[in-house]
Amino acid sequence: MPDGPPFVSFLSDYGRTDEFVGVCHGVMLDITPGLQIVDVTHDVPAFDVRAGALTLVRAVQYLPDGVVLAVVDPGVGTDRRCIAVEVDGGFLVGPDNGLLAPAVAMLGGPKRIVALDKPEFQLPAPGPTFAGRDVMAPAAAYLAGGLALGELGSSVDAAGLAPGLVPLPQEGDDGSIAGEVLWVDRYGNCQLNIAPEQLAERGAAPGGFVGVTIGGRDRRAHWVTAFADAKPSELALLVDSYGMCTLALDRRSAASELELRAGKSVTVVALAEGQA
Amino acid sequence: MPDGPPFVSFLSDYGRTDEFVGVCHGVMLDITPGLQIVDVTHDVPAFDVRAGALTLVRAVQYLPDGVVLAVVDPGVGTDRRCIAVEVDGGFLVGPDNGLLAPAVAMLGGPKRIVALDKPEFQLPAPGPTFAGRDVMAPAAAYLAGGLALGELGSSVDAAGLAPGLVPLPQEGDDGSIAGEVLWVDRYGNCQLNIAPEQLAERGAAPGGFVGVTIGGRDRRAHWVTAFADAKPSELALLVDSYGMCTLALDRRSAASELELRAGKSVTVVALAEGQA
Amino acid sequence: MPDGPPFVSFLSDYGRTDEFVGVCHGVMLDITPGLQIVDVTHDVPAFDVRAGALTLVRAVQYLPDGVVLAVVDPGVGTDRRCIAVEVDGGFLVGPDNGLLAPAVAMLGGPKRIVALDKPEFQLPAPGPTFAGRDVMAPAAAYLAGGLALGELGSSVDAAGLAPGLVPLPQEGDDGSIAGEVLWVDRYGNCQLNIAPEQLAERGAAPGGFVGVTIGGRDRRAHWVTAFADAKPSELALLVDSYGMCTLALDRRSAASELELRAGKSVTVVALAEGQA
Repeated sequence: MPDGPPFVSFLSDYGRTDEFVGVCHGVMLDITPGLQIVDVTHDVPAFDVRAGALTLVRAVQYLPDGVVLAVVDPGVGTDRRCIAVEVDGGFLVGPDNGLLAPAVAMLGGPKRIVALDKPEFQLPAPGPTFAGRDVMAPAAAYLAGGLALGELGSSVDAAGLAPGLVPLPQEGDDGSIAGEVLWVDRYGNCQLNIAPEQLAERGAAPGGFVGVTIGGRDRRAHWVTAFADAKPSELALLVDSYGMCTLALDRRSAASELELRAGKSVTVVALAEGQA
Repeated sequence: MPDGPPFVSFLSDYGRTDEFVGVCHGVMLDITPGLQIVDVTHDVPAFDVRAGALTLVRAVQYLPDGVVLAVVDPGVGTDRRCIAVEVDGGFLVGPDNGLLAPAVAMLGGPKRIVALDKPEFQLPAPGPTFAGRDVMAPAAAYLAGGLALGELGSSVDAAGLAPGLVPLPQEGDDGSIAGEVLWVDRYGNCQLNIAPEQLAERGAAPGGFVGVTIGGRDRRAHWVTAFADAKPSELALLVDSYGMCTLALDRRSAASELELRAGKSVTVVALAEGQA
Repeated sequence: MPDGPPFVSFLSDYGRTDEFVGVCHGVMLDITPGLQIVDVTHDVPAFDVRAGALTLVRAVQYLPDGVVLAVVDPGVGTDRRCIAVEVDGGFLVGPDNGLLAPAVAMLGGPKRIVALDKPEFQLPAPGPTFAGRDVMAPAAAYLAGGLALGELGSSVDAAGLAPGLVPLPQEGDDGSIAGEVLWVDRYGNCQLNIAPEQLAERGAAPGGFVGVTIGGRDRRAHWVTAFADAKPSELALLVDSYGMCTLALDRRSAASELELRAGKSVTVVALAEGQA
């Protein structure tokens, strides 16, 4: 637990147009006055558990110790469980649908898990469709306020955490790496599921060029260090702030110009000097 | 007033693209350092007092005791009043244009009202177009900081609060209920101004089917408990998290597919077993 | 420095869709627990340093004393400097690309500037593309927590601050003023770089009419005090909440109907009574 006030980080697909986020803040502050809440983002695409899991795993290493509340929950009201997971440095609270698993793994795996099945720590609700407000936000606030994990619900086998699906790249016999776009950010930069070490092993290096195949079309990308190192309209490949390979254009959207979105296939290959 | 730090909930149609919300936060924190502010939402459609009033009345029951600042104010700078209303558990501050009335009624009615007419509790302003910053945010911050309501302005007859217009459904002779869409949420779910009790009185029940007429076209909706209980592409009716009837599709937008928006007419009728 | 908890105001072009803003909050709270952060806005158009500088200069007079973190940084990772500037009442932290200069000038000019070149006050980073998270947010948090400016980096000549470019209007021989749109707000109001005093010197006055030329087409605007004082579909000119001339339509978007956006030329001229 951190110094300073009790603390919750909060991520969801609630958007900011409706009152959902504000209401969850209100519920948490009513339970734990003085609680400090960081909104990681609430614009995970609606219902997109994979995008939420990837956002969470990128962010979690930068969040202070404490409680993380994550809600992307298309199965709300069905028999999927809501859980709280103890990890090194704190707790994660969310639906057990794969959203939490990659972050839990990054934080060293689950130490203990409980199912949030104790009505006395939930809000009475007219319908079961807003478990973020009625079940999960209260649990996060109680944990941040110091309640013991075991009070919140029944123990669950830590091995039973629903897995998160993070796609792995495929290495081809010809030295190519077949990956995909993990994430398109606000600027249109396209993060791939390919690490720069994989390219380096095949002879590519910063300053050189990389072959990029998208939708059957071959291009050439310049491996640069900063966005502004690329020439205008030159496709750039760089190591992004999370250490992964990213396709980018200087001050323009690579996603728009290459028609890329999360999940789309991208194959890369190191180019010999003569090919560059 | 709550335990913990002084507290303001804040709702508006300011959007988050400009600096309006941040500036109001700054103004309040300058007046009351350490103030805790919950942003309910700032994406009420621009100028839409009715949508703001409905958002506020949904949210207010989940906000901690304290001060609520609500600003949707198309008449800014005219002779409409800015007011502060004392209710059970705190105060509401906003323009007197119907925005506050439904929330005030839900909280048991007004105990006292003052018009915000004391310049010493306002910011000097080059123009009268940003009363949220210059008049209402300061009043909210002073109240949260402990200033007595009577200091902020002249008393106003509590019966003179501008009414909010919440549309009531019409019951037809044929057992139908003619209502309308109150709210389309981020997921495209369409909340109606029809309570499940009204449908139940006419013989409908969870698990059964309800007839829905929109724009002259008749459909059938399956009354389910959770979104995921509906079959793919099956129109669902369920009791939402505020206890009202809502039209929805599992993981898709009912508003888009049925071409619904706030204010559009929807007629529902219980269906006998044979009709389902 | 303010009373109350340590304090940072934060403005950027990060958007709220990704986790960038939340991660910067996390980084700052990890360094300075209990820090209070005001999000001014994060929807400055991507890469738009001028729009960011104008937003900052509008907002800064309303922010409490303390630290301002501002990040619109298309040159991230190149040799542009990241700096912290001491001003009356606090510090501004950001890239030295013109973003900070107008706000620094409004606050009385720079007292001292340091370049953020001490790695011990930065986060280790896999790539140089997220200096907001790795360099500038930490600096803001350390300053808010009480670290002396000189600890953060090497002194820089205060005269070397990169200038911000705020366009000045041109006065014509015919009494006209050739200006441009500085800012289109959420409601579609179009702030001009023309002060009402300039119009008044030429004989225009509230209640009267002003000639407005946009894209070769002449129109007439009614100089009103409040938006609602304009007749339906009547073009209004009014003094906005920052004291500048603004073109507006009552409850509709002047920007949409006049096809205006930031940077577009607008010429205004006082009209004699007979012309109105």
